[in-house]
Amino acid sequence: MAPLMFTVSTSPLVHAHSNIRNSVFMPRRCFGQIHLHTTPSIRGCSLSIRSTSSPYSGFTRIDGKKEAKSIRDEIKIEVSRMNASKNVVPGLAVILVGERKDSASYVRSKKKACESVGIKSVDVCLPEDSSEEDVLKYILSFNEDPSIHGILVQLPLPSHLNEHNIVNAICKEKDVDGFHPFNIGLLAKRGSEPDFVPCTPKGCIELLHRYNVEIEGKRAVVIGRSNIVGMPVAHLLQNEDATVTTIHSKTRNPEEITREADILIAAAGQPNMVRGSWIKPGAVVIDVGINHVQDLNVPSGSRLVGDVCYEEARKVASAVTPVPGGVGPMTIAMLLSNTLTSAKSIHKFQ
Amino acid sequence: MAPLMFTVSTSPLVHAHSNIRNSVFMPRRCFGQIHLHTTPSIRGCSLSIRSTSSPYSGFTRIDGKKEAKSIRDEIKIEVSRMNASKNVVPGLAVILVGERKDSASYVRSKKKACESVGIKSVDVCLPEDSSEEDVLKYILSFNEDPSIHGILVQLPLPSHLNEHNIVNAICKEKDVDGFHPFNIGLLAKRGSEPDFVPCTPKGCIELLHRYNVEIEGKRAVVIGRSNIVGMPVAHLLQNEDATVTTIHSKTRNPEEITREADILIAAAGQPNMVRGSWIKPGAVVIDVGINHVQDLNVPSGSRLVGDVCYEEARKVASAVTPVPGGVGPMTIAMLLSNTLTSAKSIHKFQ
Repeated sequence: MAPLMFTVSTSPLVHAHSNIRNSVFMPRRCFGQIHLHTTPSIRGCSLSIRSTSSPYSGFTRIDGKKEAKSIRDEIKIEVSRMNASKNVVPGLAVILVGERKDSASYVRSKKKACESVGIKSVDVCLPEDSSEEDVLKYILSFNEDPSIHGILVQLPLPSHLNEHNIVNAICKEKDVDGFHPFNIGLLAKRGSEPDFVPCTPKGCIELLHRYNVEIEGKRAVVIGRSNIVGMPVAHLLQNEDATVTTIHSKTRNPEEITREADILIAAAGQPNMVRGSWIKPGAVVIDVGINHVQDLNVPSGSRLVGDVCYEEARKVASAVTPVPGGVGPMTIAMLLSNTLTSAKSIHKFQ
Repeated sequence: MAPLMFTVSTSPLVHAHSNIRNSVFMPRRCFGQIHLHTTPSIRGCSLSIRSTSSPYSGFTRIDGKKEAKSIRDEIKIEVSRMNASKNVVPGLAVILVGERKDSASYVRSKKKACESVGIKSVDVCLPEDSSEEDVLKYILSFNEDPSIHGILVQLPLPSHLNEHNIVNAICKEKDVDGFHPFNIGLLAKRGSEPDFVPCTPKGCIELLHRYNVEIEGKRAVVIGRSNIVGMPVAHLLQNEDATVTTIHSKTRNPEEITREADILIAAAGQPNMVRGSWIKPGAVVIDVGINHVQDLNVPSGSRLVGDVCYEEARKVASAVTPVPGGVGPMTIAMLLSNTLTSAKSIHKFQ
């Protein structure tokens, strides 16, 4: 078998970005291009064939935290510039229904991130037993509010509420989560562009771009078909000319398919589901999972892990995002980016 | 290698149809279930390994013409029943811009099909140099017209017209082609249902259902990523729990991927592109291509062929749709079905 190598070259950025929608506005930094190898996958490969415990030669840890920080810094500058020029502060409204601890934590993170870049955030926390009408009342009010440029309903909603009715009520021009069917339809259709791309998928692609991972012509496998990650990220990859397979709970022998992937996006919500043996040598792996698992060795009694077994993945893949510090910070950065884009669009500010 | 066989059983229909959207209204006839074999694909396989020129054992020619006739007969009954009960005739408006012969031919076929089932059709033929406003004027008028339940703009449009602006102007409740971004978004999102599913993809899935092809858990490969066929049919297959890969012009070694497919949908618009060697033994092949090729042996000087080399495919696949007589008639039947569904919905007729 030909040796599998991870090569970093100093060649100029050669991606065609014509299909990249709503990309964040700053120029991409060049890390040198990651060349994905096209050697055939080896069925039945497992970690046992790699006796060393050292990482894959030239392995790259994809640092989402660092990239997100860089994006937030740029957004902060743009927010200031807009305020100085137009006397406008971008505004994000976040609606939280119920008392899920994880949702409350995400909302706090978003609020803090908004503050850090100068975006105004308005939070509405409604009780668990709120009616659809209660929620819709706020959405319709924010739709009309000129100081609000983005509206986000924290998901999941309590089960008695109809998620579709609520998400669809957000006017598409303020749908910074990108979940409105009209925006999803525009994302799915070739030749059209949505007002907003969902934040986590956009963050995944942004990381691939920032690490100069070739996408065109590559085999990409997405694990999970959720509306929030799997489905939109599959469209984004296909829009950039990857050949995409989506696998899910009904897929038989998923590891046979993941081993074909040059780019593997794991968004299944299953801790450590993707083992080293699932990964094609040299692949780039983006881990979207955020799973709390019990760990009595830490004071909190639990820790965060992804869908990918990182320690195994780093011995096989050429590049992997860690959890935490990978996709998570990028999701919030993309939300800020979408909110800024919306404010710029509404106020016709370049 | 284990023998590959095509088995027809007399077991009852066991599909879970919970995800089938806008299915035509009649019960499905049971042909016995086609069991797809899950033996591994054989890379490098070619027709040469099958020395016989006879068809695949138990080969089935999927007869779209016959199925479409059956559907049209049922629609005709429903149209009469609705007229008798509600004094309403479903109405379809078709807008044709320019003088493309193929488009004019499709419009004539649609008109004839409408007449055959008692649906009123209104055709508007506009000159090639019509402005966007000219076309939009008719769309907005049909949007308001209570005698019209479906509006269809024949594609492709002349290049000076913006297809998206025109398609998006059709109110989604009358979007019987299913191309409006809102309907595409609802098709793409899990847990939601579009008002209408695009006709050709719906026809493909209807054929699979009517021939009792198992979809859940199967590998499906879609060739082509168009808005009209490839993208929506991929969503329909995934909604029924297939594991779907879409291949396209930028895919490397497409035949390696198609040979993994239990269900292969060819919608590339390339005559005879799919050779026997591209097909997994025992696969079910749906050929969406309608290509005119020169043939000096026939009076017209040309004949229709699909994207699949039928004569080779029938020696490898367990079932194939012919061209003509496969998907084509189903597309028009689905248009009639969508128009009837729209009229029933608007007039609240069960």
